[in-house]
Amino acid sequence: MNPSYRPQVVIIGAGFGGLKAASVLAKAGVSVLLLDRNNYHTFVPLLYQVATAELEPEQIAYPVRSFLRGQPNVSFLQAEVRQVDFLAKTIETDREIINYDFLILATGSQSQFLGVPGAATYALPMRSLCEAIALRNHVLSCFEQAVHEPSPTRCQQLLTFIIVGGGPTGVELAGGLIELIQGALVSDYPELNLRRSRVILLQSNERLLASFPQRLGAYTQKQLRKMGVKIHLNSKVRKVTSEAVYLEDDTIINAETIIWTAGVEANAPETAPAVSTAMKGKLVVQPTLQLRDHPQVYAIGDLAYLEQDGKPLVGVAPVAIQQGVAAAKNIARQLRGLSPQPFNYVDKGRAAIIGRNAGVVQARKFSVTGFPAWLVWLSIHLFYLPGWRNRLSVLVNWICDYLLKKRFVCLILPKPRAKASPRLFMTEAQTPLNSRNIELN
Amino acid sequence: MNPSYRPQVVIIGAGFGGLKAASVLAKAGVSVLLLDRNNYHTFVPLLYQVATAELEPEQIAYPVRSFLRGQPNVSFLQAEVRQVDFLAKTIETDREIINYDFLILATGSQSQFLGVPGAATYALPMRSLCEAIALRNHVLSCFEQAVHEPSPTRCQQLLTFIIVGGGPTGVELAGGLIELIQGALVSDYPELNLRRSRVILLQSNERLLASFPQRLGAYTQKQLRKMGVKIHLNSKVRKVTSEAVYLEDDTIINAETIIWTAGVEANAPETAPAVSTAMKGKLVVQPTLQLRDHPQVYAIGDLAYLEQDGKPLVGVAPVAIQQGVAAAKNIARQLRGLSPQPFNYVDKGRAAIIGRNAGVVQARKFSVTGFPAWLVWLSIHLFYLPGWRNRLSVLVNWICDYLLKKRFVCLILPKPRAKASPRLFMTEAQTPLNSRNIELN
Repeated sequence: MNPSYRPQVVIIGAGFGGLKAASVLAKAGVSVLLLDRNNYHTFVPLLYQVATAELEPEQIAYPVRSFLRGQPNVSFLQAEVRQVDFLAKTIETDREIINYDFLILATGSQSQFLGVPGAATYALPMRSLCEAIALRNHVLSCFEQAVHEPSPTRCQQLLTFIIVGGGPTGVELAGGLIELIQGALVSDYPELNLRRSRVILLQSNERLLASFPQRLGAYTQKQLRKMGVKIHLNSKVRKVTSEAVYLEDDTIINAETIIWTAGVEANAPETAPAVSTAMKGKLVVQPTLQLRDHPQVYAIGDLAYLEQDGKPLVGVAPVAIQQGVAAAKNIARQLRGLSPQPFNYVDKGRAAIIGRNAGVVQARKFSVTGFPAWLVWLSIHLFYLPGWRNRLSVLVNWICDYLLKKRFVCLILPKPRAKASPRLFMTEAQTPLNSRNIELN
Repeated sequence: MNPSYRPQVVIIGAGFGGLKAASVLAKAGVSVLLLDRNNYHTFVPLLYQVATAELEPEQIAYPVRSFLRGQPNVSFLQAEVRQVDFLAKTIETDREIINYDFLILATGSQSQFLGVPGAATYALPMRSLCEAIALRNHVLSCFEQAVHEPSPTRCQQLLTFIIVGGGPTGVELAGGLIELIQGALVSDYPELNLRRSRVILLQSNERLLASFPQRLGAYTQKQLRKMGVKIHLNSKVRKVTSEAVYLEDDTIINAETIIWTAGVEANAPETAPAVSTAMKGKLVVQPTLQLRDHPQVYAIGDLAYLEQDGKPLVGVAPVAIQQGVAAAKNIARQLRGLSPQPFNYVDKGRAAIIGRNAGVVQARKFSVTGFPAWLVWLSIHLFYLPGWRNRLSVLVNWICDYLLKKRFVCLILPKPRAKASPRLFMTEAQTPLNSRNIELN
């Protein structure tokens, strides 16, 4: 090999894993090209706060190019990846065809509707910033509509919000939503009796936060109920329509807003040849994070299926970050003629927030609930949020909400498109391809 | 009249004039209903800073309901007005039909394309928050595209930005854009030679800021040229296409981005019967701001045509605010059986910003340029921006940009829709009805 040749490492996805891998490889004597369909990184753990008008979208979106300043070996291309050809070692995008010597797939995950009829059409996902913005606009539009709605039945439907999925995302969203309604919106909508509004959390199994210890799930349920969230356990959704969810026990709950937090699947790019996948469409990787038949290709984060201690690793940011480091280091090892090393996830614990003064933390063998856990959750997320200005402005928003119950982002912006859609104000981000009633403005 | 009857005053438009009128009428013993198609007020003078990635949209958008807290006599309806029936005294909206006793029309203005062929289809307006966001996304997308554009001609086209219209909006936008390119984007795009980028300001007559004194227009031109903006005076646009502007002297300038700041017209609602209009579609009003044939109806702000000292009043925020007060007070007078009073605008002066340390201020007989004028401009806009938190966060953005040339909002968000549009990445807000090439994602 030409000694002056600089190997090209391509990373697809500027999420937690992709960005981390890029920063490690920046010092590895390679050229790094980072691809993403957006020109910003999204701090996904705080998406629900955009959806509940607590934070502005820009406070949790950080331009990729800002990350890359001072890293001359790393360049960025905003592009949609169409297909990866493992044999030719090329990536076809909507801009150009890119060659690679090494490749890291870090494309993350998207909502999975679990085959529930109507869910993809009528439920609102919340996995991207555009979806969170659309959800916020939709929720606020329901209140605007309810103000002048003469029919009590229709008004109740507008003020009913169903969240399907009682994992951390669903729990945090339920807490954020009920606090929005009982806090800021009470002052904004004196014409409405907001005690009529309902936030309903549906969980398919017997407890919330099923991946946390049982005690924390029970605490969470108690807290949410105290806050006014209606919780239905052991409630599987059979069908979703434009007006209601139908449960397997034949219960029907009418609602204008049905939010889907019940499952995610890998956002896998199309590849040639195809790669073996496991649950949720995740790509099966070796312990070194390499694809079995393509040793120059790595998959990390939500995209990758890897077991540790007999259980698949969960799709959370710390896993993606550690795998980003590991994949980058393994590529560096390969370049030096060494064997890649197996990945070992160091689990520092997990946290979830329920509402003001209420959180849960589980770290190794101990767990904490309540105010200390809430503080820990806030601190961790503030610490890891990219950008000092974002951290400062998020802290200001949090303080104002805590002390004054004030939310600054009660804006329906940009204006949703459809007028007579199945979901009241679905926007472009959610518009399903097969929805009959969407009209263009 | 029933002594307990509370007259209903409807105000259409939550801009500067409408909001001011609502706040005055809140204490006048009437019921006030404020209508707007958006649930927020837009601080229009800072729109160009959203378009140039200096500010976040939410920093200049203030929820209408936040304004109305503590004003129990004032309620809000988010709705599109379809028609006003002056004889039946009703307003037809997309939600319901509303009755009024008194009406204030404060619907503002929109871009006017002056009959230039192609302008409405291919030029980008900047009169609303959605349009400013779309413009920012488009501008940044041009740079993203240029990074990997192999053709030098096409690359040059992507890096050429034409602004049509050398009034205050065009001047401020030109200054903001050149500073964005030469400041933040130089660090973000090390792959591009940004000295190739061009910001071109076209003015149809012989000087910039034609409504300001000649000295200030000359100063502005000198400053912009020093900053690198190319200025073409006496340059009327004959035609706009997807790739270029054609001037009346047959000059053709190729550009991917053509921004229209050359004219606005009244955003007049449909009325029955029709109302006489003057230039730019403005409604002709009496000196009292009433419509001649409908004494319960007032028109204010950019919507209204009224002369003072032989010249039509300009469409600026101070005029709208003072007219909002005057219209509200006149309605209160009518309710007390008194005659409305003629409106007299107290002109405190005008200001425009060119770039860092460079502004122009004209107040009564004196005018100021340079650093003091720049400070005055910043102070005025910070003072009048609604919301202390917005003021604080805008100040932080300004300081960071001034000291570090850092812009935090270099985000292409939400993702533009069309792939193969006449304008590279037109979004929904700009999508013209008759554009042939727009594809849905």
